Amino acid sequence: MSLNILVTGGAGFVGSHTILELLNVGHRVICVDNLCNAFGAANSKLPESLKRVQDLTGKSVTFYDVDIRDKDGLREIFNKHKIDCVAHFAALKAVGESCRIPLQYYQNNITGTSVLLEVMAEANVFSFVYSSSATVYGEPQKLPLDELHPTGSCTNPYGKSKYFTEEILKDLCESDPRWSVISLRYFNPVGAHKSGRIGEDPNGEPNNLMPYISQVAVGRRETLKVFGNNYDTPDGTGVRDYIHIVDLAEGHVSAIKKLAGGELKGFVVYNLGTGQGYSVLEVVDAFSKASGRAIKYEIVDRRLGDVASSYADVTLAAKELGWKAKRGLKEMCEDTWNWQKSNPNGFAGAK
Amino acid sequence: MSLNILVTGGAGFVGSHTILELLNVGHRVICVDNLCNAFGAANSKLPESLKRVQDLTGKSVTFYDVDIRDKDGLREIFNKHKIDCVAHFAALKAVGESCRIPLQYYQNNITGTSVLLEVMAEANVFSFVYSSSATVYGEPQKLPLDELHPTGSCTNPYGKSKYFTEEILKDLCESDPRWSVISLRYFNPVGAHKSGRIGEDPNGEPNNLMPYISQVAVGRRETLKVFGNNYDTPDGTGVRDYIHIVDLAEGHVSAIKKLAGGELKGFVVYNLGTGQGYSVLEVVDAFSKASGRAIKYEIVDRRLGDVASSYADVTLAAKELGWKAKRGLKEMCEDTWNWQKSNPNGFAGAK
Repeated sequence: MSLNILVTGGAGFVGSHTILELLNVGHRVICVDNLCNAFGAANSKLPESLKRVQDLTGKSVTFYDVDIRDKDGLREIFNKHKIDCVAHFAALKAVGESCRIPLQYYQNNITGTSVLLEVMAEANVFSFVYSSSATVYGEPQKLPLDELHPTGSCTNPYGKSKYFTEEILKDLCESDPRWSVISLRYFNPVGAHKSGRIGEDPNGEPNNLMPYISQVAVGRRETLKVFGNNYDTPDGTGVRDYIHIVDLAEGHVSAIKKLAGGELKGFVVYNLGTGQGYSVLEVVDAFSKASGRAIKYEIVDRRLGDVASSYADVTLAAKELGWKAKRGLKEMCEDTWNWQKSNPNGFAGAK
Repeated sequence: MSLNILVTGGAGFVGSHTILELLNVGHRVICVDNLCNAFGAANSKLPESLKRVQDLTGKSVTFYDVDIRDKDGLREIFNKHKIDCVAHFAALKAVGESCRIPLQYYQNNITGTSVLLEVMAEANVFSFVYSSSATVYGEPQKLPLDELHPTGSCTNPYGKSKYFTEEILKDLCESDPRWSVISLRYFNPVGAHKSGRIGEDPNGEPNNLMPYISQVAVGRRETLKVFGNNYDTPDGTGVRDYIHIVDLAEGHVSAIKKLAGGELKGFVVYNLGTGQGYSVLEVVDAFSKASGRAIKYEIVDRRLGDVASSYADVTLAAKELGWKAKRGLKEMCEDTWNWQKSNPNGFAGAK
């Protein structure tokens, strides 16, 4: 079964890896991205990440430089292509920045999604995969986090925008039975494609642990800041459920397969994680081994809003999507390092 | 002190009554309304409600037929007028409809507000009064409801759109100290201006009790439906905190005065209610006395999402805004009836 899949935000980290897997299983991809966080599109019709996806797969991606808030722009794309399903990655995602410019976050993430959904309905397209986040669970009331855990006590505009959008999707599905929506709640995506040709390329100082570590390892940054070592965890540092980006991408392939099967109706959520938590210091250690480099770090104050531990109950996705993460921490570190060392400045060094 | 106040949604029930009071105390009003729920604008530059406000006050309102999601349209208005403060009423507000067309509710109420706030910031206007609702409290955990009661467990898209917007306003104020925002949480606005020239004019079957009763009294509808008489209340019917629309309008005048004073910073909420709850049957009885008409009613099933009792703690607004509701249930019913009997078909009968 080969589908026409519209991917929004496809130039980014999760989007580009997902497109690669979608192409590999034989789907056709139409990508929409406003390139606000992507590198290398100025002199080219394609952002650098998608050029490399084409190289790696030997297949082509149809690309539109369109903002999802641009209703007419989206309409044109739906008129040109018979879309079967939409995978929606386009969003702003930096927690700290979201506190500084909340309106832009709400406009990009909520208004953007609403406009996209309106245009989909006009075009009679009702299959939707949403990039959600474990942040919607707020402070965990119990661990592991399963999909029935309450949502909503988010402390920053980024997290709220993910939670609000899930509520909008739920209301939409209740209002109109034609919709089938899968919301995938990501835990902590890391790693890179095995080739080392695509990977995570954050702007400025990374918000997340793994890219920070790898920039220290490659010499771009001096010292890793570890935010607190007095949490109630085995070594005192925060514990998270890291998931390899290729596993995450495969989770999307499984979700789209499920939607195409037609028996899923309404709004359904799945955790995408491994079910296994690792502390900051465990990740540092694993990365150090994978890269053969010492990672200098210092303990600094906790960050506001960080929880001690977060990891997923992954039984639902296994049962209903037939999907399970296969790659462990060692492979996550090796693949991150492989990408980082051959692209020390991310896509910016591309020839 | 005379200010230039931009009023969005000023053609509606709450908006028009507030404009009248703002004009009476000497402010100038610029009104923006897309007229999606207003009568009589086709053959005129002004909707019927605002024509009558002009008649009643002897003052004029500057009116723009603009949708608040239209950024360029709003920008033009802010370029033309030196706005001191915005009172934001424009929103869709029917609970049942919000469940049928949720995206339109989210687009009007959330996207609309975000666009308005963006344009305000561009124009260096940072004083904002928001039309919120007691619905943000969800199911009351204790009564009376004070402003510290938790918010967010709303069961329908209308209520969620009010709650989400409050969160957006809170985040905005935290991100930028120039903002001063008062969110007014309305309990159940009823009644009409003493003149009987302006009042509530719902489209189709009324969602709310008082307009329903008054349409029964005037003969437009046969029988009032009372949704449940087995609640845990003195007579089994739902108890609500009804507030006279002129009191509510005066609450806005007080809020704007407070903002203009300059000492209030950030995001602040106030309940607007009387603090006194009345049951459905008490309102029926009071209306019957005020109108001299029998009100035929029948008991039907509860409505999903209705709570047994809801009434406000009103001490905060009294203390900080110097505002208190002055009009009782008798006056609410008399003024509603005065409006209804001289306008049996609302503004539609206007010459």
